[in-house]
Amino acid sequence: MAEPAALVDLRSDTVTRPTAGMRRAMADAEVGDDVYAEDPTVRALEERTAALFGHEAALFVPSGTMGNQIGMRLVCEPGQEVLCDADAHVVTYEMGAAAAIFGISTRTVVSDRGRLDADALIAQVRPKGDWHLTATAAIAVENTHNRGFGRVQPLAELEKLWRWSRDAGVAVHLDGARIWNAHVASGVGLDTYGRLADTASVCFSKGLGTPVGSVLVGSAERIATARLWRKRLGGGMRQVGVLAAACLYALEHHLPRLGEDHEHARLLAAKLGVDPASVETNMVVLDDVNAPVLAEAAKAQGVLVSQVSPTRVRLVTHLDVDATGIDRAAAVLTELLAR
Amino acid sequence: MAEPAALVDLRSDTVTRPTAGMRRAMADAEVGDDVYAEDPTVRALEERTAALFGHEAALFVPSGTMGNQIGMRLVCEPGQEVLCDADAHVVTYEMGAAAAIFGISTRTVVSDRGRLDADALIAQVRPKGDWHLTATAAIAVENTHNRGFGRVQPLAELEKLWRWSRDAGVAVHLDGARIWNAHVASGVGLDTYGRLADTASVCFSKGLGTPVGSVLVGSAERIATARLWRKRLGGGMRQVGVLAAACLYALEHHLPRLGEDHEHARLLAAKLGVDPASVETNMVVLDDVNAPVLAEAAKAQGVLVSQVSPTRVRLVTHLDVDATGIDRAAAVLTELLAR
Amino acid sequence: MAEPAALVDLRSDTVTRPTAGMRRAMADAEVGDDVYAEDPTVRALEERTAALFGHEAALFVPSGTMGNQIGMRLVCEPGQEVLCDADAHVVTYEMGAAAAIFGISTRTVVSDRGRLDADALIAQVRPKGDWHLTATAAIAVENTHNRGFGRVQPLAELEKLWRWSRDAGVAVHLDGARIWNAHVASGVGLDTYGRLADTASVCFSKGLGTPVGSVLVGSAERIATARLWRKRLGGGMRQVGVLAAACLYALEHHLPRLGEDHEHARLLAAKLGVDPASVETNMVVLDDVNAPVLAEAAKAQGVLVSQVSPTRVRLVTHLDVDATGIDRAAAVLTELLAR
Amino acid sequence: MAEPAALVDLRSDTVTRPTAGMRRAMADAEVGDDVYAEDPTVRALEERTAALFGHEAALFVPSGTMGNQIGMRLVCEPGQEVLCDADAHVVTYEMGAAAAIFGISTRTVVSDRGRLDADALIAQVRPKGDWHLTATAAIAVENTHNRGFGRVQPLAELEKLWRWSRDAGVAVHLDGARIWNAHVASGVGLDTYGRLADTASVCFSKGLGTPVGSVLVGSAERIATARLWRKRLGGGMRQVGVLAAACLYALEHHLPRLGEDHEHARLLAAKLGVDPASVETNMVVLDDVNAPVLAEAAKAQGVLVSQVSPTRVRLVTHLDVDATGIDRAAAVLTELLAR
Repeated sequence: MAEPAALVDLRSDTVTRPTAGMRRAMADAEVGDDVYAEDPTVRALEERTAALFGHEAALFVPSGTMGNQIGMRLVCEPGQEVLCDADAHVVTYEMGAAAAIFGISTRTVVSDRGRLDADALIAQVRPKGDWHLTATAAIAVENTHNRGFGRVQPLAELEKLWRWSRDAGVAVHLDGARIWNAHVASGVGLDTYGRLADTASVCFSKGLGTPVGSVLVGSAERIATARLWRKRLGGGMRQVGVLAAACLYALEHHLPRLGEDHEHARLLAAKLGVDPASVETNMVVLDDVNAPVLAEAAKAQGVLVSQVSPTRVRLVTHLDVDATGIDRAAAVLTELLAR
Repeated sequence: MAEPAALVDLRSDTVTRPTAGMRRAMADAEVGDDVYAEDPTVRALEERTAALFGHEAALFVPSGTMGNQIGMRLVCEPGQEVLCDADAHVVTYEMGAAAAIFGISTRTVVSDRGRLDADALIAQVRPKGDWHLTATAAIAVENTHNRGFGRVQPLAELEKLWRWSRDAGVAVHLDGARIWNAHVASGVGLDTYGRLADTASVCFSKGLGTPVGSVLVGSAERIATARLWRKRLGGGMRQVGVLAAACLYALEHHLPRLGEDHEHARLLAAKLGVDPASVETNMVVLDDVNAPVLAEAAKAQGVLVSQVSPTRVRLVTHLDVDATGIDRAAAVLTELLAR
Repeated sequence: MAEPAALVDLRSDTVTRPTAGMRRAMADAEVGDDVYAEDPTVRALEERTAALFGHEAALFVPSGTMGNQIGMRLVCEPGQEVLCDADAHVVTYEMGAAAAIFGISTRTVVSDRGRLDADALIAQVRPKGDWHLTATAAIAVENTHNRGFGRVQPLAELEKLWRWSRDAGVAVHLDGARIWNAHVASGVGLDTYGRLADTASVCFSKGLGTPVGSVLVGSAERIATARLWRKRLGGGMRQVGVLAAACLYALEHHLPRLGEDHEHARLLAAKLGVDPASVETNMVVLDDVNAPVLAEAAKAQGVLVSQVSPTRVRLVTHLDVDATGIDRAAAVLTELLAR
Repeated sequence: MAEPAALVDLRSDTVTRPTAGMRRAMADAEVGDDVYAEDPTVRALEERTAALFGHEAALFVPSGTMGNQIGMRLVCEPGQEVLCDADAHVVTYEMGAAAAIFGISTRTVVSDRGRLDADALIAQVRPKGDWHLTATAAIAVENTHNRGFGRVQPLAELEKLWRWSRDAGVAVHLDGARIWNAHVASGVGLDTYGRLADTASVCFSKGLGTPVGSVLVGSAERIATARLWRKRLGGGMRQVGVLAAACLYALEHHLPRLGEDHEHARLLAAKLGVDPASVETNMVVLDDVNAPVLAEAAKAQGVLVSQVSPTRVRLVTHLDVDATGIDRAAAVLTELLAR
């Protein structure tokens, strides 16, 4: 920790530290007791986020995991199942929460690196009321897809799933932890993405660079229920406008610059000889490498990367890595890959 | 229901009705209050079953679902996961019980019609103690495999999984609803199968033909815990020796004749032009048929079959279908398939 | 176990063994696969029981615990609470099932030996939608009351609670494990009791003397949901008409004789010097005794009693204890109490 | 919200807003990604808190509810129960979380306004391994007691409970949301309180005045498990050192001044004619008032109070109410009470 500035940390976009401007916004935030729904900054963030995604209401939660899990619970009863792809964050990185805290089963379909295939999911849906089968109450979609290395979901697939779901009586939950990246990369409006989901969790502590904070959006009735579950899970906080202020700041100052991270990722891919077509947003994947050896050697030279599997390394660009950092990482990794 | 004898019911081996001999055994059963562990017939069945499978202890439960679910709970904590194949009974036909009542996640690997592939499962295991991943506490194996149409699991695969599991600290649960069929078809001892699992649920109301009853086997300590969970789930019954007596009767009188069902299935397959190699025990599958039409037409002629998918029909032989019934079903189905 | 006939077992009315007539009815039962809802005897019992209690539908379940727990789940969501008295069976003898399997909180009010005090319960009800409190979704009433030693609930209190509940939007669940005793003792119709509850679980393996079996009654919609939960909990059984036949037999042959048990209890109380006013149905309580010593000494002389606390012993009359048994028990206990 | 400074908010000590100094400490906090356990400020707070309470380890959580619930889960398995008093925060204001998310039953004993009566609780403990009863795994103690109006638990009772618990194999959880007030009022060391519990949750957003933050303390092994549950519940946050910095600031600057709040409460009680002996820390209760009318009228004059029941009002002193505010509140309330 002696000289953190010297590190180029490409492990995840969650590692960003708040900027001076963001810290100032936090220090200046007007606050109240949010358990009583009296924090004006939290309310402003909730209203702003609901409007951005075209939903009636929104709720601030301490993490993307809580946003996703409550979001799924709003559209799925204990004993029913949520269907999603086998690499989805909600079934991979959320510690079995759906089953553990809500009694919800998750069932998965293997995908092509996270790419949404509406028909493949629809084919797996099981009916309600059967005396043996676990009823499929909802389908969860992740956009961009983390383990799909920042993949943007095709709008046509999202629309096909949505149209089908209305007739089928199956809900759609959007894990929009990185929906901002999808929006910037595709040009599709946040409200368009929002309207193709019954519930959506969006996160401010990844590409947008805040220390903490996610927001769940949905109908007014569902969000009122979500508020009860948030308290029950221990996510009710008091003068949390100090965190919400960072989120509002990020919408104004960091969302407009998110394209830079994508540019950096493409630059890094080019320098490392990775197919640029595989880089849709802010992630670069190195395949067929000795991941532990590469990660260790890079770390020794001040470049942190993420080992996704024994032969795969992930690099994530974000607010705290500038062009110089990209050059430095590329140089270190190129040299190591050449060995 | 006017003349049930006229029906040939091949939907499942669960439909068998108790024979006169079995009914007599039930009527004559010595009983006590099993919630106080005082039913001598239940205790005899538990001791007998534990011994057959080489385990310390056993517990009578009202269904295979309860046996499987408690069995998995004994080796998996809430928040952890059980890994199994995507067509396993425990994730397909048990209504999301693992998540709903125990907070256990299930994760699946697609298999070749239910065939156990130890390496494929092992490759998916996730470690304990990770701050993101759902830890894999147990692997569930089904033998014979229901949706695999009576497939017998290869002993070598069972042994490979077991050896690996000891070092890995991952438990093995056996869904042995039809382990009797596997035993008869393969000649592998019940105790051999039993010793390759930490917990096993075996069922008497399928091929063995009792009206009700499954038994869970495991270590004495685990079965003591299972007894508490059985009560909590509402599976504690009183003078249930009337049911256990049927199970003891079935071990003596129906287990020895189980090979007949397999012979009948092979015969049926041959008559219907189904590859006999695909018939390992008591199930025959008809692929590429119009399942609803075929099932409806067969029913009109007194032959009941099971629609597994829109294009697949399953035929199950059992105690209540004799050679005449097989002939009759074959004649009806052949004629219908020829249309 | 050598000469069980010699024992006078007053521990509970759950210990009754099926009579010859009941065994015959079981052996002769017409059966089918009840998981497919095809068991005619089970259906007959369900229809008969629903009609007796004035409800639309009914479901056979393996135990009173399952009947109570599913019944409460039908009227209470996870995160909400059921309010009941502190000695209720559902919170005392059901192993924390409401919380463990359904996520339902239970909250209790201390009562006068189980006597329903509608106002005391109503005063504790908490509203829905509050951001801190656990909402009260239902109130559970036990009639007769087990730990209240067979107390019959006052009809006026039941009616007061019911009237209030309709306006309050709070449901009423009846634990009617021994509702038959209440009916016989009070002369109040079973349908009257039934109509004062949204869901009711009634048990055939206590005073009615069957080996196994409870039935849950409620609206058609709720019972359809109950069927799903029964399967999920592992309570789905196959040719379970063998057990339902005993229940139908008991309605015909044992319900009419239930008054004898009450007579026996009064007789026993009189012989033991217990206030006869405290004996409303089939239970007698001995207070201020050294329970372990008394129970052990009585057992040595072939009389089994139940230790409810270190200083309290419970005696329960039932089908398997005739006048001779009562005399014998009275003689043994009188002598021991005199020491 | 026009002139919030004009308000005297005595509803709760949760309503405090961060001071300028605290905001500065937050803005200057050194941070890292706490999901990776890399936030130096969070680690410092965890180490400091563990040391203060004499425990091996600690974990920062977003709320007292999460601290309490995870703390109880660490010492109680699903299906078991936690025993506590009927007015405890964990069963009153945490929305049924123990049952809903962990399958843990809660059972309560009525107390004298929250005062710990070790013998009364011990008398209610139920054994493990029984086939009917819900086993008591832990007892939860609240100190100071919120609904007991800031009551400090007698050290002798805490010690008696602790000594008994070691032999009994029953754990003790401390809800120490306001343990700081107990410490200041009684002079008993925080480490003394800490050592009389297996797990303890302490809160920084009540009397200590931070916007958000609780810490759970316990053994190293338990806290490692707690970290997994925190993530599962959605309590894993990233650069949350911004909040932890406020907690460290509060330990240094606000803990030493906590006595002022107690002084203010005594002053307020004196002015309102409330028995000063009933004011042990920072809460004053007004009994036998028309709570809704009083609260509404006081609010109209800029004094906010909490309605605990229709006839009871609670006043809580804290950091944001100075002597002038106390005078003002006393004047307003005195005048209103005189009407």
